[in-house]
Amino acid sequence: MSNPQAAYEELIAHLREVALFGSIGSVLGWDERVQMPDKGAEHRSNQSSLLARKVHEQFTSPKIDELLREVETSDSIRDQESDPAVNVRETRRQYDRATKLPGSLVEEMAKTEVLAQAAWGQARAKNDFPAFRPWLEKWLELKKQQAACYGHTGHVYNALLEDFEPGETAENLTGVFEQLRGPLVELIGKIVSSGRPAPIEILERSYPAEAQAKLAREAAAAVGFDFSAGRLDVSLHPFCTGIGPGDTRMTTRYDEKYFGDAFFGVLHETGHGLYDQGLPEKHFGTPRGEAVSLGIHESQSRMWENLVGRSRAFWKFFLPKARASFGHLADVNEDQWYRAINDVRPSLIRTESDEATYNLHILLRFELEKAMLSGDLSIAELPGAWNEKMKKYLGVTVPDDARGVLQDIHWSGGAMGYFPTYTLGNLYAAQFFEQAGKDLGDMEGQFAKGEFAPLLGWLREKIHSQGKRYTAAKLVEKVTGRALSAEPLLAHLRRKAGEVYGVA
Amino acid sequence: MSNPQAAYEELIAHLREVALFGSIGSVLGWDERVQMPDKGAEHRSNQSSLLARKVHEQFTSPKIDELLREVETSDSIRDQESDPAVNVRETRRQYDRATKLPGSLVEEMAKTEVLAQAAWGQARAKNDFPAFRPWLEKWLELKKQQAACYGHTGHVYNALLEDFEPGETAENLTGVFEQLRGPLVELIGKIVSSGRPAPIEILERSYPAEAQAKLAREAAAAVGFDFSAGRLDVSLHPFCTGIGPGDTRMTTRYDEKYFGDAFFGVLHETGHGLYDQGLPEKHFGTPRGEAVSLGIHESQSRMWENLVGRSRAFWKFFLPKARASFGHLADVNEDQWYRAINDVRPSLIRTESDEATYNLHILLRFELEKAMLSGDLSIAELPGAWNEKMKKYLGVTVPDDARGVLQDIHWSGGAMGYFPTYTLGNLYAAQFFEQAGKDLGDMEGQFAKGEFAPLLGWLREKIHSQGKRYTAAKLVEKVTGRALSAEPLLAHLRRKAGEVYGVA
Repeated sequence: MSNPQAAYEELIAHLREVALFGSIGSVLGWDERVQMPDKGAEHRSNQSSLLARKVHEQFTSPKIDELLREVETSDSIRDQESDPAVNVRETRRQYDRATKLPGSLVEEMAKTEVLAQAAWGQARAKNDFPAFRPWLEKWLELKKQQAACYGHTGHVYNALLEDFEPGETAENLTGVFEQLRGPLVELIGKIVSSGRPAPIEILERSYPAEAQAKLAREAAAAVGFDFSAGRLDVSLHPFCTGIGPGDTRMTTRYDEKYFGDAFFGVLHETGHGLYDQGLPEKHFGTPRGEAVSLGIHESQSRMWENLVGRSRAFWKFFLPKARASFGHLADVNEDQWYRAINDVRPSLIRTESDEATYNLHILLRFELEKAMLSGDLSIAELPGAWNEKMKKYLGVTVPDDARGVLQDIHWSGGAMGYFPTYTLGNLYAAQFFEQAGKDLGDMEGQFAKGEFAPLLGWLREKIHSQGKRYTAAKLVEKVTGRALSAEPLLAHLRRKAGEVYGVA
Repeated sequence: MSNPQAAYEELIAHLREVALFGSIGSVLGWDERVQMPDKGAEHRSNQSSLLARKVHEQFTSPKIDELLREVETSDSIRDQESDPAVNVRETRRQYDRATKLPGSLVEEMAKTEVLAQAAWGQARAKNDFPAFRPWLEKWLELKKQQAACYGHTGHVYNALLEDFEPGETAENLTGVFEQLRGPLVELIGKIVSSGRPAPIEILERSYPAEAQAKLAREAAAAVGFDFSAGRLDVSLHPFCTGIGPGDTRMTTRYDEKYFGDAFFGVLHETGHGLYDQGLPEKHFGTPRGEAVSLGIHESQSRMWENLVGRSRAFWKFFLPKARASFGHLADVNEDQWYRAINDVRPSLIRTESDEATYNLHILLRFELEKAMLSGDLSIAELPGAWNEKMKKYLGVTVPDDARGVLQDIHWSGGAMGYFPTYTLGNLYAAQFFEQAGKDLGDMEGQFAKGEFAPLLGWLREKIHSQGKRYTAAKLVEKVTGRALSAEPLLAHLRRKAGEVYGVA
């Protein structure tokens, strides 16, 4: 006797328990990176493995399949946007993926991750790509096997992309990225030859860590981060983790000789944090209460970091506060400051690049990943292809592989298909922000008065509170009335280039 | 076909997993008290309950009983002090206790704990014992039921004491405590009437928190706490938690107008921490790798706090460091300092009392608990009995129940049988310390030179590395060659009273 309602409730209870175990893992992960004493590492690894094993066992339990089958045939999920329909659809998707990989492949990937990351670390330190090459070849082989297990339509890339940006395709991305690439290369070329460098030395004065921390915290709170439901700490690599309702934690690190990293880093993590704090609490532990995708998550961080945090309006409000913290800023006017924090400058390293050039670093990686996976590019040819694209897109000459193809950790961990989510974040952010401007009227006027609640409220309603109700592509259409386009981001970057460099 | 070796190995693997889950709970507990944002409380409670449920389910699984039965009949545990014998003996003891309580009683106690603690908090704030009385009556009833489920020989108290000090009996405690009480009451009386108050105002000068933290950390490191395997943080109520191998965390809190609390508090927690750091790592997750009992744990904290930390020799080494941190101590000589930190003064509140009077606070509670459990004292009569004993033992008049019978949280949480472990800690500490002095020669000379490694090494060998090999009583005999006695503690307190107050 079938009882879909009871089955659904049992499914939800089961999912919540899995999520609760997962969120305990988040506490362990945060603690490991922020608090744990060095010698606690081995014990922590035992704790974390045990939890990960529990989560995997429970999530891949045949019981889930059984319960899903019972609900999938029922009327209760006929409305595809209802909470149960969303939870069933997404759980089915994740369950099928989690159970499609044979244990032997999962194990092989786990082992390869450890060994290949170690090899990558050494190869980068010694600028020795050939030493890393066999590991990348191995990963490529494993990723192809993984893709074959998942199955896919269109490009093989789609099978992997699905882990990071569900529902997105390489074909669609290629289209949008092509839209972006030419105009962006052209715009950056104009900026470089404008002969009007931004006064970035302002950002390289003395910025004591404690004062930076206070100011960054003030900024995060000003835009709406709830510190009674979160924290800001220091870690080697900045991150944000949503542990669960009422507990969202960000980190940063302070460079006392450079203002930009920590301040905009905190605004970036604040964007992630605001999303996590805005997820619907009552749906915790189910897809309906989770973020849409990495790309949508990144859209929130990029929006607060770049579209808000690097806007002139924001600094009308915030520069006096910065001056109160750093006396030496008394001689810096708003225009100088605005130009300094919006410097665009082609460089070798993705993580150090600016709002505009960043995207070309990503496009390059996306193109190379596609070519590797389709077999059009061998690993041996990879460094050459990398260097050629760097020259073509950004006009820079890569002096060595350590500052070229070896710079990122991602591939050594098998994360192929991850990079595009960064630029998707920028694209989504610009398109959402443009729409928010239409809906909210004078956003710049609001920012200049320190009023961020209208924008945050808009994001809460349109995006945060929706959980995984829509796929990313559908959410963009729903919120902005049209499919994802490169135009809003290009328009934004052109406007800024006009203001800062007198070009467009 | 029986295979005791395989069964033992399976048992150990199972126990380790339970312990690993438990240690994850320790991380959550530490985080909750030190880091968690306020609004994370509900989610944390969900996480912690889930873990506690898992630990309970796994530890009370009939599988454990099965495995134990298979091993218990085997030759491998004939040597009662071998690792397997210790693990089997202790697991059996804990398993039987954990499975003897009916679920309904466990639930009732859990519910009562929450409600009674809330009622206690309000009753204490309003100085309203009658409002708390029904809860204490309820607890007494539940504790009697619990004791009946466990079963016991001798006093009903023994059934409850077993949770905190396994193997100890009310009869034996009564004997030792009687040995202590009369002489201690007499000694304190002499101190009070000596007319030579200690110069405690020295401790009430300005002590900035940051400088206190630095000094306390220096002291903890000096006596041997490994900060690469541990931490010191701030929390409302100081504690120490041994999360697992390589990760032991202490907390304290700083009063900028009083030196004593944080500094000696940290030495106290350091004693606990040194024990945890000294437990045999390879036995983690099994009784052989765990502390003997609360009393033995407390002996380590009391030893480093009082017997080392309040010794004249320690301050020969450490006073110059304190003077470097607090310039105003330049006018304080060693003798004044020594007298100030060894002030003895009858007071109303247990947690604020000194090394000597503390024990009378405990004896009083022990006697009242015994009388309540045996039915010789009704809850209605409790406040009167409390006040009478306070007058008799410490000569102080209790002005109200908030500063009397309502002062401790323990009974509201159902912790009856816990209090004696505090004084047991003092007794064990003094007896161990006396023996260490015989074995190590001139300990005072060593302390004065900042050499604490001999004592720590002795504790590591005799106590820390032994895990639960022996019961507390047996450990005391093994290490000191005789049964627990009140004499070493009395001798220590008399010697100090002589030095500080000219009495003995």
